[in-house]
Amino acid sequence: MNQQSPGAPSKRTRVRRLAERAHYDQKTLYEIIDAAYLCNIAFNDGESTHCIPTACWRQENYLYVHGSNGGRLTKVLTAGIQVSIAITHLDGLVLARSAFNHTMNYRSAVIYGTFEIVDGSQQKMAALDAFMDKIAAGRKHEARPGDANELAATSVLRISLAEAAAKINNTGPEDKPEDLDLPVWAGILPMSVKYGEPIQSNADQHNSGDIPTPAYVQEWTNRS
Amino acid sequence: MNQQSPGAPSKRTRVRRLAERAHYDQKTLYEIIDAAYLCNIAFNDGESTHCIPTACWRQENYLYVHGSNGGRLTKVLTAGIQVSIAITHLDGLVLARSAFNHTMNYRSAVIYGTFEIVDGSQQKMAALDAFMDKIAAGRKHEARPGDANELAATSVLRISLAEAAAKINNTGPEDKPEDLDLPVWAGILPMSVKYGEPIQSNADQHNSGDIPTPAYVQEWTNRS
Repeated sequence: MNQQSPGAPSKRTRVRRLAERAHYDQKTLYEIIDAAYLCNIAFNDGESTHCIPTACWRQENYLYVHGSNGGRLTKVLTAGIQVSIAITHLDGLVLARSAFNHTMNYRSAVIYGTFEIVDGSQQKMAALDAFMDKIAAGRKHEARPGDANELAATSVLRISLAEAAAKINNTGPEDKPEDLDLPVWAGILPMSVKYGEPIQSNADQHNSGDIPTPAYVQEWTNRS
Repeated sequence: MNQQSPGAPSKRTRVRRLAERAHYDQKTLYEIIDAAYLCNIAFNDGESTHCIPTACWRQENYLYVHGSNGGRLTKVLTAGIQVSIAITHLDGLVLARSAFNHTMNYRSAVIYGTFEIVDGSQQKMAALDAFMDKIAAGRKHEARPGDANELAATSVLRISLAEAAAKINNTGPEDKPEDLDLPVWAGILPMSVKYGEPIQSNADQHNSGDIPTPAYVQEWTNRS
């Protein structure tokens, strides 16, 4: 039971955050973010603090989210308040020979900053196309694109990754020397994402037989 | 690209939160929490808002976390400030025939409240034993228990689940009638947790050959 939280900054000063960030290069940070479909956004609306999971994607040095114009999350984020965002991948449980040396393997990113609105139809559509590319490469050329009304009803926001910290724990059990001879199984119970068999929607009997299966569907279960 | 955030409360009033909560029974809420090893805790320390992932477990109607006494998260949470906690499981990507009807399947819980300190050695140890039971049933009888110093250096905190909301999206693609005949693959790309082959720690050559493999290690890859 390791006492370190995956994403906890040791101090809250900006300098310290950036110092932590420097533990990992930008490539590592991007890999952690790109492996995630969801992020957790923390904000305080002046009354309460909230933690809201929502879909996300990255382009260059920005994290993007989207929502309906009327949605509460959208309204709050467009106000430009300070937020903190956590993304965490759990990679396994680490079983040590003593209870208090148990820990977990993880990769996490924590981002600080404020969101800005992505304005203009072209810019919004380009951002949403990038989201679709993350979900299924090439599908933006297959699915019906959003029309003007759908696009107008949607807000796209982005936050700079300038102030982001990556943390990784990738270890085996670390026991005290005096515990090493205890007759206790020690090791790692790995966890990762399982990509299950795609389920084609054919309940409505529309086109279910004569649509070619896209590559991203065929290859889904082979991802790792 | 569905505009609903998994955990976003529609309004921030307590009444509304409890109304949402009523959409799901306690059993459903507990299942979502019990399936998680990590939660994301949002809090504002008077200077900034933070989102910190940390290990968690449930006992009865409380969510528990722990940390070292000197850790920043522990210090902040023991001060009794208002927090919001999100737990989310991503179950799949839902590919609709039109771009803006894409969504994700998920199960999420959002908890509001303040943490309280679990005091007293017996109470703390009982809580940490419950955490170990979650990680590996029965292992509390195998691993060396914490000694007085280890226990004293660790804080255990809990938060009531009285104000918690569960949200579930479990759907196939929902397209407009006029999109149903588009020749576009539609369906679900499922995601779940993969429990990988356990990796026994024997790099240090301690007891690696003569330790029986516990049931929770043998059965790890069969979990679902």
